[in-house]
Amino acid sequence: MLYIAVVGGSECTGEESELALQVGSEIARRGGVVICGGGSGVMKAASEGAQAAGGAALGILPGTDHRLGNRYLNFTIATGLGEARNALITRTADAVIAIGGEYGTLSEIALALKMNKPVIGLNSWFLEAPHKTGQAIIEASSAKEAVDKAFSACRNV
Amino acid sequence: MLYIAVVGGSECTGEESELALQVGSEIARRGGVVICGGGSGVMKAASEGAQAAGGAALGILPGTDHRLGNRYLNFTIATGLGEARNALITRTADAVIAIGGEYGTLSEIALALKMNKPVIGLNSWFLEAPHKTGQAIIEASSAKEAVDKAFSACRNV
Amino acid sequence: MLYIAVVGGSECTGEESELALQVGSEIARRGGVVICGGGSGVMKAASEGAQAAGGAALGILPGTDHRLGNRYLNFTIATGLGEARNALITRTADAVIAIGGEYGTLSEIALALKMNKPVIGLNSWFLEAPHKTGQAIIEASSAKEAVDKAFSACRNV
Amino acid sequence: MLYIAVVGGSECTGEESELALQVGSEIARRGGVVICGGGSGVMKAASEGAQAAGGAALGILPGTDHRLGNRYLNFTIATGLGEARNALITRTADAVIAIGGEYGTLSEIALALKMNKPVIGLNSWFLEAPHKTGQAIIEASSAKEAVDKAFSACRNV
Repeated sequence: MLYIAVVGGSECTGEESELALQVGSEIARRGGVVICGGGSGVMKAASEGAQAAGGAALGILPGTDHRLGNRYLNFTIATGLGEARNALITRTADAVIAIGGEYGTLSEIALALKMNKPVIGLNSWFLEAPHKTGQAIIEASSAKEAVDKAFSACRNV
Repeated sequence: MLYIAVVGGSECTGEESELALQVGSEIARRGGVVICGGGSGVMKAASEGAQAAGGAALGILPGTDHRLGNRYLNFTIATGLGEARNALITRTADAVIAIGGEYGTLSEIALALKMNKPVIGLNSWFLEAPHKTGQAIIEASSAKEAVDKAFSACRNV
Repeated sequence: MLYIAVVGGSECTGEESELALQVGSEIARRGGVVICGGGSGVMKAASEGAQAAGGAALGILPGTDHRLGNRYLNFTIATGLGEARNALITRTADAVIAIGGEYGTLSEIALALKMNKPVIGLNSWFLEAPHKTGQAIIEASSAKEAVDKAFSACRNV
Repeated sequence: MLYIAVVGGSECTGEESELALQVGSEIARRGGVVICGGGSGVMKAASEGAQAAGGAALGILPGTDHRLGNRYLNFTIATGLGEARNALITRTADAVIAIGGEYGTLSEIALALKMNKPVIGLNSWFLEAPHKTGQAIIEASSAKEAVDKAFSACRNV
């Protein structure tokens, strides 16, 4: 069973929300589990998409109350770690799909790449490294393409 | 939905394993979710009990690979935090049931009591504090009694 | 350079405070570094003792502001991890001296023993395990004896 | 006392190493403390610079042995948290100076910006956000300018 993290802003545009919904749904239809930070915005839409497609979504929360995740999560973990929980999302995931996002999302992209996990970007950050680095963000232009690429990348690891 | 952590040794006696199986099953029958460290021994038996009763078990793993939990877990989180993950088990739980156990279990009992979570003990640690402390371990003598007391304690919080 | 954690209540008796002051001082006089949670009570007294003897004390704080440690600390780390920071205190220490204490202290004793670190107790918890366990708390009856035993135990590891 | 994190690759170019040495030295000369990941490369050079100028450097290590930091550190914390320790570096710091770096460094830049800490870049990452974000990396072209900007930014917070 593949665990795919969907990361992005807790506030997001309508277009990003729609993409996240489709990404969550596509992950579930392929038998994957959505891992996310458990909040609103992209996280909530991805969870809703997973649920609508009969799949599952887990929320790894920064706070101390397991009840405070969005309403589409099957289960939540209350880490109480604040921002340090971002490392647990990427550690748990087999691949990461980033949709838009701000600095929290960027930290998840970076942590995932540092951990050698595939990262697929949908209208997300553009990065230019000071040096040649290893693996980069894999760009996708639709939800379906992002999820296809995430699953392919996992199989090739 | 109540989250009940079941903590105990990764090695345990046959009697403890049987107790953990019943505890997992009783939690599931009351609609609760089993939270555990995801390993063998008491953790595995509690997960098996939950699954057998049609419920769910989550494993919060110390390591970095989400595939390395016991086979009765519905979902796992790979924290990569080592022993620090014990604090996430108690943080996520509404109540903790301790069955036997060694120092890892003792740390979970202590962290739970520090966090003001109810702790039910089944043949577990006997503690004598240097000072008067708050809440103590609530003793139980059967799996059913332990789970009854865990659910009652949650309702009274 | 040996790192000795001094753990105990953020509220403590006058006797415990005096013991912690002496323990901090004895650690510093032997060239050790005091590691603590950075708070008040036993933590503050141990830090003060270390400083008075010309040594150093580090505070590993649960919160997010490195300025919020007690005033006798040379340096602090703001973990933002809440109770999970207890595992970092014991992980960093070569040995742990526990003075009195409540559940937070008990969690540090248990985590240290789980990590195979020597733990010396001064009027601290009395524990009775459900099973035979490994190493137990080493009792001491004076600050000097506690620090002697901590340093000896480190050398024998 | 200001805590300035210096982040960058554990492998780095000679030019980056020289910059890090100067940055560490400039921080110490202004009475600041160097916070770093405790490893080699940029971390080691910054620690060496701080020591050479009579200042102090702290290493927040990913591993479990406090002895495994570079030899210019005054004190180390053994977190045992792996990559999650990056969040503790930025949490503890009042400002962050990034020199070159790969994905680990990028995660520290992102976590710092998420935590509203000033980030100064010296030949480091170029980022283009999918949305308007808050504060960005403040560029500097010399060690002295980077440290001046870090101290000014702290005073304005």
